[in-house]
Amino acid sequence: MQLRIPGPTPCPPQALQAMGRQMINHRGEEFGKILNSVTGKLKQVFQTKGDVFLLTGSGTGGMEAAIVNTLSPGDKVLSISNGAFGERFGDIAAGYGAKVIRLSFEWGKAVDLDAVENALKADGDIKAVLATHNETSTGMTNRLGDISAVVKKFDKLLLVDAISSLGCINLPTDDWHCDIVVTGSQKGWMVPPGLAMVSVSERAWQAHAQAKMPRYYWDFSKAKDYSQKGQTPWTPAISIFYALDTTLDLMLSEGLDKIFTRHAQVAQKTRAGVKSLGLSLFPDEKYASNTVTAVNVPDNIDILKLSQVLREEYEVVIAGGQRKLAGKIFRIGHLGSVCEDDIRSVLDALNKALLKAKKS
Amino acid sequence: MQLRIPGPTPCPPQALQAMGRQMINHRGEEFGKILNSVTGKLKQVFQTKGDVFLLTGSGTGGMEAAIVNTLSPGDKVLSISNGAFGERFGDIAAGYGAKVIRLSFEWGKAVDLDAVENALKADGDIKAVLATHNETSTGMTNRLGDISAVVKKFDKLLLVDAISSLGCINLPTDDWHCDIVVTGSQKGWMVPPGLAMVSVSERAWQAHAQAKMPRYYWDFSKAKDYSQKGQTPWTPAISIFYALDTTLDLMLSEGLDKIFTRHAQVAQKTRAGVKSLGLSLFPDEKYASNTVTAVNVPDNIDILKLSQVLREEYEVVIAGGQRKLAGKIFRIGHLGSVCEDDIRSVLDALNKALLKAKKS
Repeated sequence: MQLRIPGPTPCPPQALQAMGRQMINHRGEEFGKILNSVTGKLKQVFQTKGDVFLLTGSGTGGMEAAIVNTLSPGDKVLSISNGAFGERFGDIAAGYGAKVIRLSFEWGKAVDLDAVENALKADGDIKAVLATHNETSTGMTNRLGDISAVVKKFDKLLLVDAISSLGCINLPTDDWHCDIVVTGSQKGWMVPPGLAMVSVSERAWQAHAQAKMPRYYWDFSKAKDYSQKGQTPWTPAISIFYALDTTLDLMLSEGLDKIFTRHAQVAQKTRAGVKSLGLSLFPDEKYASNTVTAVNVPDNIDILKLSQVLREEYEVVIAGGQRKLAGKIFRIGHLGSVCEDDIRSVLDALNKALLKAKKS
Repeated sequence: MQLRIPGPTPCPPQALQAMGRQMINHRGEEFGKILNSVTGKLKQVFQTKGDVFLLTGSGTGGMEAAIVNTLSPGDKVLSISNGAFGERFGDIAAGYGAKVIRLSFEWGKAVDLDAVENALKADGDIKAVLATHNETSTGMTNRLGDISAVVKKFDKLLLVDAISSLGCINLPTDDWHCDIVVTGSQKGWMVPPGLAMVSVSERAWQAHAQAKMPRYYWDFSKAKDYSQKGQTPWTPAISIFYALDTTLDLMLSEGLDKIFTRHAQVAQKTRAGVKSLGLSLFPDEKYASNTVTAVNVPDNIDILKLSQVLREEYEVVIAGGQRKLAGKIFRIGHLGSVCEDDIRSVLDALNKALLKAKKS
C-alpha cells in the first residue's frame, strides 16, 4: 500500500524496526543518551541554537503548547490564516482566553503582506502573531520569511505551525526569528505519530516568564528542567524516540539541502503530472506546497469512488479535503520518505482510476 | 534485561511486533475498526458501560484531561493524597484555577476515611474529589471502593488516577461510581508509553457541559464527536493502538479475575521475598500495592551501588524513590507482563547484589 496522505507518512524499514525495540527505563542513562542525541540532531534540522523539546502528543498538542507557554488570557494575538490549520491555531488561542484578531485570507490564496503590516500598525497592543508555514489543508506554503520580516519590524512574538513543512521545506528558525516552531513526528520525520517537537527562542523564554495561561502537561519550564538531567517530565513515547533517532541519521546523512531539493523536485513532478491528466491545482500555484498537492475534483468525477478505486485496485491512499473543502479537492502527500518513482506510480494509478470514477 | 520499574513495563513479543507495523490512514476505515476494537475491549477492562477515550499523551496528560473537562476555575476540589502522584493531581487542578483543599496523609500511610467524610461535611461547596487508586510513588493501593462510598454519600464528582492499577487490580468503574478513571498505556497494558485512556461517566458528562476550564487538545466533546466516525480529533499514536489491540486480546483471554489473582500472587511473593532478605516494606503492608513494591533502603546499603550492580551484573532494572523518598526507598515494578519466575530471578539478583552494595 502506498500511503500518500500528508501524514502519517510511510516509515522506512529502519524506523519500523526501531519501533519494535523493547522498553527501557525512561529515567535511566540509556534514555538520557537517546534524548540528547535526538535533541541535538533536531536542532540541526530546525536550524536553531535555541531549545528544542519533544512533547508526547500530536502536533495539535504542540500548537497548544506554543500558545499556553507564551501568552496570558486577554493578550491580543494576530492570527494569520488561509486554511483549516491556520484557523485551528487561532481557535486554540481563543480557547485559552486570548483576544484573537483574525486576519483570514481565502483558502488557497496567498497571505497579503501589506494586510499583515496594516493589522500590526492598526493595533500596537498585539503581542504575538500566529502563522502557518505550510497549510496542509490547501496544499500551500506561506512566505514565512517575508511574514517574519513584517512581524519583526513591529517586534512581535512569532509562533509558527510548521507541522507539515519542517524537515522538508527550508525553515531557518533562527535566521527567520521564529520564536516557537512546532512540528509533528508523523510528517517529514518519517516516524509514527505521537511526538510534537517545538523550538523555543530566547525571546519566547522571556514571554514564557510572563505568560499566565494555565498549563501543566505542556509546560516548557518543566521540560527544560528535566532535559537538563536527560529526561522528560512525563513518561515519553519511548518507541518513537528510538525511531526518530534512526530517521534523523538518515536525514542528516542525506543533508538538508538535498532533502529540500528532493521535496521540490517530487512536488514539481506531482504538479506537472496531475496537470497533464487534465486536472487543476487548488491553490495559487505560485505558492503550491512541496509536501502536499491539493487538486480540484473535476465535476464529472465521483471523489469517493476515485479514492476507493485508488485504494482497492491500485493500493494508493490519498487524502480528501477538510471542512469546507470536503468533496471539492483531494490531496496527495509527498513528504518524508518519498522519491520520484513513488509519484510516478501514484500518477499512473490516478490516470487509470479517473477513468473508473466518472459520475454515471 | 529485566525491566522491573513501575512502568514502562516489558512488552510481550506480540506487542513489539505490532509496534513495527507500517502506518495507515488515521481517517480511514481500517483505523476506525482498530479504534472501535480497542475501545470496546478497554470498556471490558474498565468495567464500564460509559465512554472510554484514548488520548495521545502520557498518563499525566490524562490527569490534566480529567480536570479540565469537568471543572471551572474557582471550583472547590478535595484532593486526597498520600504520595507524589496524589500531590500531582492536586497541583494540576490548582494550576487550572481550582480552589484545592488538600487532604494529605503521610506518604505510605492509609487514607483516613473519617477525615474524608469530615472534609466533605465541613465544606458543602466542594464539587469534586481527586483520588489516587494506586500510589506508584509509595507502593500503596488506596481503598478506592470505600473512598467512593464516602464521596458518593455527599454526591460529589469522583476523579480517579488509576494509571498504575487499572488492568492489574480490580477497579469496577461503574460499580464504584467513578466519574473519570485515568490510566496509561505503559503500565498494566503491556505496550509502550504514549496513550492515556480515560473513562467518562454520565455524571462526568453533566459536569463537562458546565466546565469552563480552558481546553482544546484534551477536550472530551471533540473526542466524542470524532469517535462516532471511528476517528480521533488529532492524529493518534497509531503504533500503540496496533499494540494495544493485541495485548487487550491477551488480557481478555487470560480473564480479569485471573489477571488480578496473578498480580496479587506475584506481589505477595515479592513482599515475602524482600522480607526474607531482611528488608522492610515502606508502606503500611495492609495496603501494599499489587503492582509495585516499595522497599526501605537499609542504612548499610548504598542505593546507587545497589541499582548499578543489579543493572550491570544481573540485568535487572529497578526504580528509586521519588522526591522526598529519593535515596530512601527502591521500588520493584510487577505489573502487566510478569509472572512468579520473573520475581524469583529478581529476588535472587537482589540477594546477591545486596552483598556487593554495602557501604564501606
